Amino acid sequence: MFDVYETKVRVTADNDKEAARVRTELKEKNVFLVNLMASPGAGKTTTLVRTIEALKDTYRIGVMEADTDSAVDAETIAKLGVRVIQLHTGGSCHMDADMTERGLAKMGVEDLDLVFLENVGNLVCPAEFDVGAARKVMILSVPEGDDKPLKYPLMFTVSDCLLINKIDTKVIFDFDEEACLQRARALNPNIAFFPLSAKTGEGFDAWIQWLKDAVEQWRKEA
Amino acid sequence: MFDVYETKVRVTADNDKEAARVRTELKEKNVFLVNLMASPGAGKTTTLVRTIEALKDTYRIGVMEADTDSAVDAETIAKLGVRVIQLHTGGSCHMDADMTERGLAKMGVEDLDLVFLENVGNLVCPAEFDVGAARKVMILSVPEGDDKPLKYPLMFTVSDCLLINKIDTKVIFDFDEEACLQRARALNPNIAFFPLSAKTGEGFDAWIQWLKDAVEQWRKEA
Repeated sequence: MFDVYETKVRVTADNDKEAARVRTELKEKNVFLVNLMASPGAGKTTTLVRTIEALKDTYRIGVMEADTDSAVDAETIAKLGVRVIQLHTGGSCHMDADMTERGLAKMGVEDLDLVFLENVGNLVCPAEFDVGAARKVMILSVPEGDDKPLKYPLMFTVSDCLLINKIDTKVIFDFDEEACLQRARALNPNIAFFPLSAKTGEGFDAWIQWLKDAVEQWRKEA
Repeated sequence: MFDVYETKVRVTADNDKEAARVRTELKEKNVFLVNLMASPGAGKTTTLVRTIEALKDTYRIGVMEADTDSAVDAETIAKLGVRVIQLHTGGSCHMDADMTERGLAKMGVEDLDLVFLENVGNLVCPAEFDVGAARKVMILSVPEGDDKPLKYPLMFTVSDCLLINKIDTKVIFDFDEEACLQRARALNPNIAFFPLSAKTGEGFDAWIQWLKDAVEQWRKEA
């Protein structure tokens, strides 16, 4: 029928070592870092806005917005009154541990409890680069389709939590939530899974509770 | 309000030289290569299916499907009865000229008129790597939002044609077509722009005509 041809493998170099160092430093400072990853337009910023609104009385929050260009997202987050920095990756398709470390230093995190890194919109490269976060959270939006775990397996394999966003649009998109969950769990049996809508707020309570529990659990870890 | 911090710049090495060679070879063989790029889930394969249906009596068509994993898209294309090969990039976030050349050789293109490369779903890396195509076509889908030219400027800058897909969903998404066009044209004044729906077929005639004209024009080029 057709051939399948393997082309190239990417190398991540010494990033893992640096990520481990970032993770240790953040643990010492008691700062919980979330690496938030998704395709362009999946709703990372909108999800972040609603998440911050739900948690800003509980935690001191900071946000690092990474994009290849523009400051659109940082402008949106700044309106919430939390600390935010815009990082420009200058064309790079992902954040790595070194860029994250420099972003954290530039923003200042000593007086924060919870920091979100909104990674570059991309389902490939960010999955390969550990940035030293306590937890990795990915968003897949309904319009993207339920087959994405098949095409971008690494992202689903490395994430601790999968948010299915834009469930308010399920009326017009053919998205099989159960099939998507099964495909994700085949790669990663322990991945947490929360269908929600950052637009309407539906499903947010469960995700917010998961995040609070994750912070509590992490604080007890050695 | 917030800082903007430049992190890293990517290097594309000798890819351009190799891409020029691929382009020359394809010209000698009279094979028109389209590099089709978009985010995950923007509708590359669905657009391709409808495009092939419209053109398969006019041209002898081949398709190279690039993904980090799976053969989902090649299976879909194979049903149309055109030649297709699945390329696995093994985690790489884009196709480069070398991978493209090897894919073309593996598939065999001497008896073809028109070849589509469906690139890895990604708005960042594929924009940086010339693969030797005659034309670059990108898809942005309505659910992704009209601000994407601001965040992923290079993709809009290098593309010859911008298809706005899923316009049948404009009833539920807040997408300003005119604003999107203006943002794209600010980066690339000559970019062709076609709002369409690969699901319903709306807007396809203009895009198909553009592609036919592009092939005719290219055939007259030295």
